[in-house]
Amino acid sequence: MTATAKRWIFAKAPAGEISTDNFELREDAIPEPREGEALVRTTMLSIDPASRAWMAGVTYRSKLEPGDTMAGWGLGEVVKSNAKGIAPGDLVSGEFGWQTHAAVSGKALTKHDRKHKPEHILGVLGITGLTAYFGLLDVGRPRPGETVLVSGAAGAVGTIAGQIARIAGCRVIGTAGGADKCAWVKNELGFDEVLDYKAGGIHKQLKTAAPEGIDVYFDNTGGDVLAAAIARMNMWGRIACCGNVSQYDTATPAGGPMGVPGFLVTKRIRMEGFVVMDFYNRRREAENALAKWLETGEIKAPVDIVEGFEKMPTALTGMFAGRNRGKLMVRV
Amino acid sequence: MTATAKRWIFAKAPAGEISTDNFELREDAIPEPREGEALVRTTMLSIDPASRAWMAGVTYRSKLEPGDTMAGWGLGEVVKSNAKGIAPGDLVSGEFGWQTHAAVSGKALTKHDRKHKPEHILGVLGITGLTAYFGLLDVGRPRPGETVLVSGAAGAVGTIAGQIARIAGCRVIGTAGGADKCAWVKNELGFDEVLDYKAGGIHKQLKTAAPEGIDVYFDNTGGDVLAAAIARMNMWGRIACCGNVSQYDTATPAGGPMGVPGFLVTKRIRMEGFVVMDFYNRRREAENALAKWLETGEIKAPVDIVEGFEKMPTALTGMFAGRNRGKLMVRV
Repeated sequence: MTATAKRWIFAKAPAGEISTDNFELREDAIPEPREGEALVRTTMLSIDPASRAWMAGVTYRSKLEPGDTMAGWGLGEVVKSNAKGIAPGDLVSGEFGWQTHAAVSGKALTKHDRKHKPEHILGVLGITGLTAYFGLLDVGRPRPGETVLVSGAAGAVGTIAGQIARIAGCRVIGTAGGADKCAWVKNELGFDEVLDYKAGGIHKQLKTAAPEGIDVYFDNTGGDVLAAAIARMNMWGRIACCGNVSQYDTATPAGGPMGVPGFLVTKRIRMEGFVVMDFYNRRREAENALAKWLETGEIKAPVDIVEGFEKMPTALTGMFAGRNRGKLMVRV
Repeated sequence: MTATAKRWIFAKAPAGEISTDNFELREDAIPEPREGEALVRTTMLSIDPASRAWMAGVTYRSKLEPGDTMAGWGLGEVVKSNAKGIAPGDLVSGEFGWQTHAAVSGKALTKHDRKHKPEHILGVLGITGLTAYFGLLDVGRPRPGETVLVSGAAGAVGTIAGQIARIAGCRVIGTAGGADKCAWVKNELGFDEVLDYKAGGIHKQLKTAAPEGIDVYFDNTGGDVLAAAIARMNMWGRIACCGNVSQYDTATPAGGPMGVPGFLVTKRIRMEGFVVMDFYNRRREAENALAKWLETGEIKAPVDIVEGFEKMPTALTGMFAGRNRGKLMVRV
């Protein structure tokens, strides 16, 4: 434990693509927890594409403004506690921000059992896995024998969503950037087909890979893959809108996808956005299912761990450069 | 009864906006009904925006090709019948096309009671009213006290959808083209506010009219009003996608609306397309409700009747020029 606390400030709004210049490291005294709060020493911090969206405007949370401590989810150990039911030594997750130490309301902490690996608590058994689970099953509602498309298939949520679709008895097609990543998703995670969106011609690639059309599309990216998916959706198709990562890291987001609302009408497509927090009261259901699949090996939960708190900005910019495979996190 | 049958052919695909040159009148012998068919003399034919979409591509029906008899819904009287349960003199509706006489399978005919006016059978108690009823209530699912936006509010479906929303206890905002039409929708049909999309600044107009946001959007038009609605939707908002009339009558449809999928995610919006035929097995429920509201005066069903079969093309082009108010039809 260091004598001071470090945190990354969101120092300057990006004009277009994000870079490490948008962040500044600060060092302060370790905060004192107030009544009802606990002091947490963070051990593992999650790196998420949504971080970039938070800089651009109001989303499901208020916009990040320059000078704010960078926001984010993490795992840590309680050091001191003035919160009921929380004791030093507890393993907890919460919205700690990019900090080595965070004083957080006890009510905003979730306690965890040490039987699972920390990277799984923060990944497949945490927000990431819950997003994949509820987004696919509750919003997408796949039925056995259907074809499911997952974009961002090499990413944290995509890797899990595609495997749940396979468990649900579906044929699973993914999209990812670059031949190596595509091969990895196909061979390592058992997707039926993986399309390289960087190779171009995604409409044609999708037509070849899904000659019978797409029934459920789990959309992490928006953009061209979304437009291609809408064109290839079957009657009564469902699109679970999880993210729009293709449009986050730019000052000039593209217009909406062609085919909206035309194809939605003629093909009776349901397109529905969701945020995992809306399902948080059902988290035990998802955790139990995911933990079981992890144990039996039906799901693999690939993680990409960057070592060192000072690497937080590099980890995030690397994500937008497409460098990670699976759940990206930083060991503090 | 004429000795010959007349029909309008879809003669030439429009390059951009539709004109009367796209149609040709033909005169042939009156067809003989085959086994299982009935010969119907049409009395009233519906003019629908969807007609233009059928020329542009496959929709929920096959594309219209030059040389085809123009497609459309109508009302008529049975002249001869080789179909079980159908007798001369029966009042029937069906997909007759733009024809004075049609030989149609008995199974594709719906019989009607003469207690209702023919224009209501073809309008508020027919496909038009059913579209408004099921689209608003089953897809949009408004709750009392919510704000409902209806585009194309002076059109056949819009006039009815808005009034059903009012009956459901909602505040109702419409959009229409031109100050006169807007005033008519507001004063005649009791919408709370009606915005003139031709006056520009639809985003700002909508913000002023709906300071607390939109909960349900019944979308007949797509285009700018859809983009503005998505920006103003409340959390958990629902968009019932009924039509895309702003984009039908052009060779160069605009791209999709901004905010898809971004706002769908952050605001958990459900956007869902529908086609009335999917609800046709529940038509009696809608007919009964609509007939009751019509009788009590809770709903007005404005109709715009053009006299004379030779006016069919003029009626359709006039619709795209924004001339009709309420349900447009031609008396044969």
